[in-house]
Order: sequence, then C-alpha cells, then structure tokens
Amino acid sequence: MLDIYFDSAATTKPCQAAVEAAVKAMEEYGNPSSTHFRGLAARRIIENARGIIADALGCGADEFIFTGSGSESNNLAIIGAARARRRRSNVIVSTDSEHPSVEKTLEYLESEGFQVIRLSTKGGKLDINELREALKQKVALVSIMRANNETGALYDIAAVRREIENSGCGALFHCDAVQGFLKTQNRGELTRYCDLVSVSAHKINALKGCGGLYVKKGTRLQPIIWGGGHERGLRSGTENTPAIAAFGAACRDWLSQKDRVQAITALRDYAEQRILKELGDKVAIHRPPERVCAILSLSLAGVKSEVALNYLSGEGICVSAGSACSSHQKENRVLYNFGLKKEEVDSALRISFSHMNTKEEIDLLAEYLKKAVDKLAR
Amino acid sequence: MLDIYFDSAATTKPCQAAVEAAVKAMEEYGNPSSTHFRGLAARRIIENARGIIADALGCGADEFIFTGSGSESNNLAIIGAARARRRRSNVIVSTDSEHPSVEKTLEYLESEGFQVIRLSTKGGKLDINELREALKQKVALVSIMRANNETGALYDIAAVRREIENSGCGALFHCDAVQGFLKTQNRGELTRYCDLVSVSAHKINALKGCGGLYVKKGTRLQPIIWGGGHERGLRSGTENTPAIAAFGAACRDWLSQKDRVQAITALRDYAEQRILKELGDKVAIHRPPERVCAILSLSLAGVKSEVALNYLSGEGICVSAGSACSSHQKENRVLYNFGLKKEEVDSALRISFSHMNTKEEIDLLAEYLKKAVDKLAR
Repeated sequence: MLDIYFDSAATTKPCQAAVEAAVKAMEEYGNPSSTHFRGLAARRIIENARGIIADALGCGADEFIFTGSGSESNNLAIIGAARARRRRSNVIVSTDSEHPSVEKTLEYLESEGFQVIRLSTKGGKLDINELREALKQKVALVSIMRANNETGALYDIAAVRREIENSGCGALFHCDAVQGFLKTQNRGELTRYCDLVSVSAHKINALKGCGGLYVKKGTRLQPIIWGGGHERGLRSGTENTPAIAAFGAACRDWLSQKDRVQAITALRDYAEQRILKELGDKVAIHRPPERVCAILSLSLAGVKSEVALNYLSGEGICVSAGSACSSHQKENRVLYNFGLKKEEVDSALRISFSHMNTKEEIDLLAEYLKKAVDKLAR
Repeated sequence: MLDIYFDSAATTKPCQAAVEAAVKAMEEYGNPSSTHFRGLAARRIIENARGIIADALGCGADEFIFTGSGSESNNLAIIGAARARRRRSNVIVSTDSEHPSVEKTLEYLESEGFQVIRLSTKGGKLDINELREALKQKVALVSIMRANNETGALYDIAAVRREIENSGCGALFHCDAVQGFLKTQNRGELTRYCDLVSVSAHKINALKGCGGLYVKKGTRLQPIIWGGGHERGLRSGTENTPAIAAFGAACRDWLSQKDRVQAITALRDYAEQRILKELGDKVAIHRPPERVCAILSLSLAGVKSEVALNYLSGEGICVSAGSACSSHQKENRVLYNFGLKKEEVDSALRISFSHMNTKEEIDLLAEYLKKAVDKLAR
C-alpha cells in the first residue's frame, strides 16, 4: 500500500523540529506559573515560542496569546469581542463560507440576540458591495477568514480594512487565518489589517492541541475560559508547554525555508496540470480568483466524494471530501455558497499540500484519480 | 545543585509511558475526524485512551469527553450546566475554597445574574449544615471539589450527594476532581456521586494541554467552544491526539501499580514526620480531617513563603507557596478560609508528592527546610 498524504488542510505531519521541541519540553515539565527554577525554565520555553510566532505575525509578543486550538481562538475572538462590545452594537458581519468554529459560534450569538449578516462569497470572492452596505450602521465585529478551508479562496482583508475605515462603523476586524497563516507571500498582512487573528499550530507542521490569537494592543475581550488568569487573563489553564514549544519550532522551521510558499504553490500547480492532463473533462477544477498555496478543490465526474475518498484511502492516498471538520455534515454549505451545483458538491475532493509532498506523489495521485473515475464513475 | 521536585500538585513529571504514547501519536498524525486510513488510526488512539480513562472513572466511554485543560473542564461543566438549567433555577452552590477556574467562573456567572452560595470549608471540612440550608430551594448546580489544591483537604462528596437527594432541590452535582482523580482509595466514587467530574492529564504524570469531563448520560450542557461538533458536540476543536494518548497511557501506568495511593500516602506521612522531627515548633502542619495523599500543607515560623521557596529553588528543590495558579495573587483566599492566621498564610508552603519521589529526597527536603528557618527566620 502507498502512504501518500494530501490532506494537510485537515492537519499536517509534525516536522522533526516540532517533535524534538515537544519532547524536550516534556522533560522541562515544570508549571510555567511556578516561580521555582523548573517553573521559570518552562516559562522561558513558552516566551521563546511566543516571540517566534509574534515575529512571524509582525506583532509584539504581548499581542499574542496561546489557546487550545484554532477553534478556541475563533470562539474567544468572536464571543469575547461581541460580549465586550455589546453596548456599542449587536451587529456582526461575516461571510457565508466560514469554518464551523466561526459559523456555529455566530449561530450561538444569534440565539443570544446578536444580529449576524453573512456576506456572499460566490465564486470565492467576497462581495464588497454587500460589505459596504452592511457597514452602514454601527457594527461590533467583522469576522472574515483569510483562506477558505475548503476551496482555498483568499478573501481580500486589505479591502475589508479599507471599508471598515471608510464606513466609520467602528467594528473590530477578526480574521480566521488558520489556513492562511504563513501561507501567503505577505506575512505582515494579518496584523496590519486585522485586530484579532486566529492561528493554529497543527496546520503548519506543529502539534494538535494548540492555537493562538493575535489581540491588537488595546483590544478588549471577555474571556471564555476563566480561572488563574493565564495568557494576560484572556485564557486560563496551565499552558501546554510541549505543544507551544512545537508551535514555535515549526514556525521557525517554516520560515527557515525562504520560498516555502512558492514551493507549495508549485506543487499545487503541478498537481492541477497533471490531474487535468490525466482526467481531461472528467474533472472540474474549482478556481477562486485568488487561492492559498496549499489547497486544490475539484470534482470528479460521476464519482461521489466518499466513494473516491475510500477508494484512494484503500490504495494508501489520503485526500478529503470537503473538510475534516464537516465530514459528518449532510450538506456542504461552503461549496454550495461557492456556487457549485449539487452534482459537483457531491463529488468534490479537496487535495491539500505541504512542503513534504513530492512530484512523484502527485504523479501517483493523478494516476489513481484516473483509476477512480474509470472504475467507479456511474 | 540538587534536582528534587515536590510540586506535583502544580504539575507532574510525565511518565515514560506517557511520553512514548505521545511521540507515537505524533507519528499517527491524521485528523481524527478524517475518514481515510490516517484519520481512522488517529481516532482509534483517542477512543482507546477514552476507554482506559472511562474504566478508571467507572463510567461508559460515551460519558467522558476530552477538553484542553482541567480549567476548561470546570468552565464547561459550570457555565454549560448553569446556562442549560437557567430556567429551572439561577442558584449555584459551591464552597469558599475552590480552584480559581471554579471561583472565577462563578464570579463571571454572578455578573450574568446567577446567585452563588459559597459554603464554609473552615478547618478543611465542608459545612454540611450550611449545605442543607442552601439546598432548601431550587438549585441549578452544586460545584464542590474533591481534593483541595492547596491544603489537600478532601470534601465529602458522598454526603453532598445525600443532601442533594434528600433536599429534592434538583441540582446537578459537579465535582472538580483535578487533584482527586486516582488519588483516593475509592476510584468509583466520583461517578457514583457526581453528574459532572473534571479531571486533568498533567496531574497524573501525563501531559499539559489535556483535560477531561465526565458527563453522566442524559446531562444537558451548553458548549463553551462551538464548531465542528467534536466530542459529542460539547467541545469543538481538533482533538489533541498526542496528549490524549499520553493521558490514557499515564492512567494505565498509574493503575498498573496497585498500591500507588498507599505509596504516596506513605511518602507524605514520612515527610510530615521528618519535617516535624527536624523543625519541631518551627513548623506548623495544616491537617484537614481527611487529606488527599499527594499534598502536605505547612507554615514555617518566621519565613515568608516566597523567601523559603526561592531559597529552596536555589538549592534545587521545588516546592510551592500556595498553588501555582494563585502564584500571582496578592491574597490567599483558600488558606484564610481554611482558618489560618495571616502570619501562617504568609509563610505557607505546599509540599506535594508523586510516586516518583523517594525517602532520600524527603530527608534532604527536611534538612533544607531546617536550614531555611535557621538562615532566614526573622
């Protein structure tokens, strides 16, 4: 059986540097809140990692906190900002294609009386006219992702910031950058345009169990986890030293390869070209106007997603039908709102890449996708 | 410099089994929500760990969920139950010596209109008359810890359950068992008497970044982290496979030593006796009527906690002043409510044990505590 992994948007394989940093941090096992030498040593590990990630984001170390996951970061940013700003406005502006950890959080806030406006992202493009219209009132929060986790579509956060400024609506701007962090050419963009930015360790070859949130200086949030006051009072709970150390190490490892984004883009483009060559009109590639490097969305002719996924898995190739997070949902909201037809949604596959993939793996993928269609298409 | 660790109530050194399980789980890096072979392999790791811990708790595997920390478990249990039961009652009964992740959560709920009654725990004993009085009304939730994290006092959860039943107040019973889990002789007690039980991996020689919550079948909770619907919809976010695997492995390792609780109790009793012998009336041991095996609370005569802690740390011995979680707080609410005088609170030390400690380490501790008093007492 092959062992080929094209599901890096769901989660990545930890890099060697991350694993080593985590194991080392397990040996430095003190509680970072303890004031004895073991506590201080653990604290140094955490602050070192924080510094690396803050540097990568282009913010101060005191503007970045660790959480338990990207989902928690999104919840903290959205619930935290909405509650802290409720007196100003109960309006939240977002899109119709956010990750469930944003969408479900918005639905929860709706049940608490907030009003949520979901902008169209048809074709993978944010509707700026709708945004402008939505901002003609006081708005508590705008929450728009950087890179869509299913289609790879990049939404224009510079334009969002511009519209917020021009409107005078007073909104904070939160960006779910779980799929975007480190994966666009312009690394400073997230903290330049946004007030709150969610990131996740396990999407950049670090470990699961650790997320982060950029909180621009002066931004008020209400915590969602209360307690000992860790992470500047915003996220209580003993810090996850091993996963935090791994996050820092993976971030440093990522940045040490100067052209990693280009390299992943080249892999994706090669995959697109090879798959088209192999399958011709048996495949539809879904191309948003701007795409993150790591994600390729397509539909096979006449083969349901799960059928293709299971066939490929049986051969030792991992891809995804939509996203892992929506793998148990009946309908794919995001792909419908992208504009795909039912048939295309039902047969959609997400091929997602990391720098660890090779052209040889892509050749095999194209070959097996062809086999899938030949064998399984109805 | 020595390297002696007596701060296992703050966090424990991961056992070898936990480290190995975590590293192995890093290699099995798939997203547990993915339906391909890598996802399924990760899912197996998680369900295996869940089974081990549920067995240890004496509950069904479908009654135990993983969270990101003991603090998060406490928040989810308390906020989740309070919100889900608000229509029935807005009264919560707790104690005056809970961990900050309970106390601060209660304060937050008070700001949302809940009424919180805090029972006295003077002398390390729950005031059952106060409890009976408090339950003479409809109550949404009772939240009482099993083992106090600063004094080691064990609160009588069987009595709490009896009072809840007798009162007909209709309350759910949540127990913060972060310091109690696996550390009393009666392992089945937590799920026998409680509806919700918080536990934490890094207190039993597993890793930071993972907690758990027992949720008795049929108990309704509102989530605090929304999203992809992981962990039966109660805690969204990609599961922390390495830390979960380590939690299971550490739990199994703990149970493989039949008399571990006895062994730790023996270490604590030996420490108490050695320290008394060495320091005589220069030390006050704080003895609740019932104590968890792992914690010894004492005050040195005339030496402030931080001074003693720093001196010992400089010699290579880790102890704690109060708890790590309250290390940045000005006042120690818990020790005052235990009944200590200001002088005793200011000079309190918490010595906490694991099965990894030795008698030789305790001899050295007693010796250095004596030196601390000789050198530093005013």
